[in-house]
Amino acid sequence: MATPLTISIEHGDGNARAGTILTPRGAISTPVFMPVGTRGAVKTLDTGDMEALGTQIMLGNTYHLMERPGSDVIEALGGLHGFMDWDGHLLTDSGGFQVFSLKPEVSEDGATFKSIYDGSTQHLTPERAIRVQERLGADIAMALDVVPALPAPPVAVRGAMERTVRWAERNRAAHTRPDQALFGIVQGGTDIEMRAESATRTVDIGFDGYAVGGLSVGETRDQMIPALAAATAELPVDRPRYFMGIGDPVGLIEAVANGIDMFDCVLPTRLARHGTALTSTGRLNLKRAEFETDDQPIDPGFHHPLSSRYSRGYLRHLLKAGEPTAGRIITLHNLAWLSDLTRQMRDAIAAGAFHQLGAEIRGVWS
Amino acid sequence: MATPLTISIEHGDGNARAGTILTPRGAISTPVFMPVGTRGAVKTLDTGDMEALGTQIMLGNTYHLMERPGSDVIEALGGLHGFMDWDGHLLTDSGGFQVFSLKPEVSEDGATFKSIYDGSTQHLTPERAIRVQERLGADIAMALDVVPALPAPPVAVRGAMERTVRWAERNRAAHTRPDQALFGIVQGGTDIEMRAESATRTVDIGFDGYAVGGLSVGETRDQMIPALAAATAELPVDRPRYFMGIGDPVGLIEAVANGIDMFDCVLPTRLARHGTALTSTGRLNLKRAEFETDDQPIDPGFHHPLSSRYSRGYLRHLLKAGEPTAGRIITLHNLAWLSDLTRQMRDAIAAGAFHQLGAEIRGVWS
Repeated sequence: MATPLTISIEHGDGNARAGTILTPRGAISTPVFMPVGTRGAVKTLDTGDMEALGTQIMLGNTYHLMERPGSDVIEALGGLHGFMDWDGHLLTDSGGFQVFSLKPEVSEDGATFKSIYDGSTQHLTPERAIRVQERLGADIAMALDVVPALPAPPVAVRGAMERTVRWAERNRAAHTRPDQALFGIVQGGTDIEMRAESATRTVDIGFDGYAVGGLSVGETRDQMIPALAAATAELPVDRPRYFMGIGDPVGLIEAVANGIDMFDCVLPTRLARHGTALTSTGRLNLKRAEFETDDQPIDPGFHHPLSSRYSRGYLRHLLKAGEPTAGRIITLHNLAWLSDLTRQMRDAIAAGAFHQLGAEIRGVWS
Repeated sequence: MATPLTISIEHGDGNARAGTILTPRGAISTPVFMPVGTRGAVKTLDTGDMEALGTQIMLGNTYHLMERPGSDVIEALGGLHGFMDWDGHLLTDSGGFQVFSLKPEVSEDGATFKSIYDGSTQHLTPERAIRVQERLGADIAMALDVVPALPAPPVAVRGAMERTVRWAERNRAAHTRPDQALFGIVQGGTDIEMRAESATRTVDIGFDGYAVGGLSVGETRDQMIPALAAATAELPVDRPRYFMGIGDPVGLIEAVANGIDMFDCVLPTRLARHGTALTSTGRLNLKRAEFETDDQPIDPGFHHPLSSRYSRGYLRHLLKAGEPTAGRIITLHNLAWLSDLTRQMRDAIAAGAFHQLGAEIRGVWS
């Protein structure tokens, strides 16, 4: 299969891997956290900020963007890259996660649901998800999968997994854009055998990369990790692996420990807007009264030129006053902090010290 | 009188002047528009943004800051400069404008009113306004004045003006910080003779600079301009003049045409957050449907690296989606655009072409 995307694995430590993804657009060092620009922007930041942060790849949300402003509008304005004026990498999800959260009627053809914008009836099929994503023009598109609402009986989980595999074939067949990679998605809930089977059958269809979906959705970590491990064990080593929807530091460690290269989550930016920072000593709620006259930066253990110049006392005031500048500064911090955590993971993998880093992060965050 | 602030007038054109204010902190080219950081930040921007914009001087709001977080907190965090990590110039208002908008009980001693934050009874006197501002530590503090609610009968306007003069003496006597300039405020409504008298009596007390207050509050421009001209005619040429609360392009032209050096207004940033941009062809409401697929920058006649990279179509989408990034980008644009307008005014004054520039601006905006 011709592919616009390759990954070279430069270091391994247990199942953890550090490498470089190459696309027609350039290189991405992995592991990589992908900030989420749901509607074409990371909330409170602009594209210049993402550049200043050194962001390698951002997410856009296909469901929201196909509703507003519509993929035709974005295509007319140069695709999502031109729309945002972003030269870095982009990945669009398939819209599946949002659509399935709207409790759609699902048939073999696709999912029928009511628009959250205008209540109109919408129908999303693998073919439409691909067509929309090709118009959005991200570097990486995602197959439309079937996401079961958990907890679900085993028969429902199997049904969703089987249909995801059938849809995977349709996604693959519908996709034509040669400069855009397409990732398949592994489902199967927390059932180890079903995860392995889903991975194997998705790999048999053949994608440029593979995502693990439907985890980190409320199950315990003791349920999540074996399911994740069962999936990645069946994935080819020479294709990138993406864990969808994980963004807490321990979750990132678990994902990388199980062979994942890429992850995304809205949590770090959402927490930021509510005043919570990720720091080397754990979560910090900057609204707390104790920070009123605290002249220290958000995290004295992590320096970043965009955010460390501001004191906790200043940020506490801006948060209490409802000033949008607070969310902006803490968003910059949280994204810089997570980017630094992935750099630490790369360094630790190269040094054969990933287990130690994992123990440190678990010690702080568990 | 020893003063921490001087102005050298480098060019004049009619009554318009272009010069340089010097303080212990550095230089400010005039005319200058001062963005308003009401609660210690310009909404949606951080201090790094203000530096990137080349902002020379920002405003902080004494009433809001003395209530939250309190001048003691700000003083403990290095004064307003340290609090915001801002090395440029700062001016704090006296709190008078906000307090008088709360319909206070006014006695010769001061104004008594209910806090908008917790309903507590507060009392603001000239001495307290000065003490608070000395703790905030801006480069320029403002005298507490009496702002009559307009329209008001002549006797009320005169009473407010007379009390403003008596309070000006108390402000002057209370002020002790040698590195901070103190500006007096001219009142007198739209009455030409009262404006002239207020200016003369305020100058007799002696301040580092003079502000014209209580205008641009609902009166017509035909009422405003003679009152402004009557005030500035009595002000010393070697002291800066500040028109409080004007930010529309024609207003800036009128102010400068009448000898003003400095102005501030929340309007350009508030308009931005609501989707309205200032452009070389007038106001532009970026929410309009016609911009849906418009790939032009906000103002094709004005290029700025922070904002011109984004298309009208992208901004329209962000506005319709309620994304805070929209307000941020348009705020950056409006402030850059106004800063450029003041640069054009300086250039025009130096070239003896201020009248032409004024005619152009009036032609676009009237």
